Amino acid sequence: MTVPPDGWEARGRPASWFRRFSFAKYAETRQFLDDLAALSAEIGLHPQNLNFATTHANITIEGVDQQEPGEAEFAFALKINALAATRAGP
Amino acid sequence: MTVPPDGWEARGRPASWFRRFSFAKYAETRQFLDDLAALSAEIGLHPQNLNFATTHANITIEGVDQQEPGEAEFAFALKINALAATRAGP
Repeated sequence: MTVPPDGWEARGRPASWFRRFSFAKYAETRQFLDDLAALSAEIGLHPQNLNFATTHANITIEGVDQQEPGEAEFAFALKINALAATRAGP
Repeated sequence: MTVPPDGWEARGRPASWFRRFSFAKYAETRQFLDDLAALSAEIGLHPQNLNFATTHANITIEGVDQQEPGEAEFAFALKINALAATRAGP
């Protein structure tokens, strides 16, 4: 990353990855969240932001140290996809 | 840049460079803006965003094609600094 000249301020946000997961009912959403918590404990990665309601969860994954998401985050996102695939609602 | 897995959406903003230039009076601000317009015409680069009021101008420089600012933008920012240095206010 190029550092700007004196007096200039670098702004911006590194890329992050977002996905919304929808479920048929709260019990499925809850199970997905519990599975995700277990997965995070197992692999040591967690979403940087997670917002959920009755039948959906919005998840954002970022890289570490202001970097873009990389291979570790790619694998994490795939595993989250797999958790959701077993119970994805309409 | 790593492309996210299927179903995930990449978000974020490439870095940009920001600087606020202050001047003692409107005539100086106006002269700076005119000089900047002439510089832009000469070198073929212009700020991606410019907001000005009576005694200041806020300038944002971005890279091209969603890339971060690089060497060309660094040189451009230095030239803008130089334009402002001749008439920077308090």
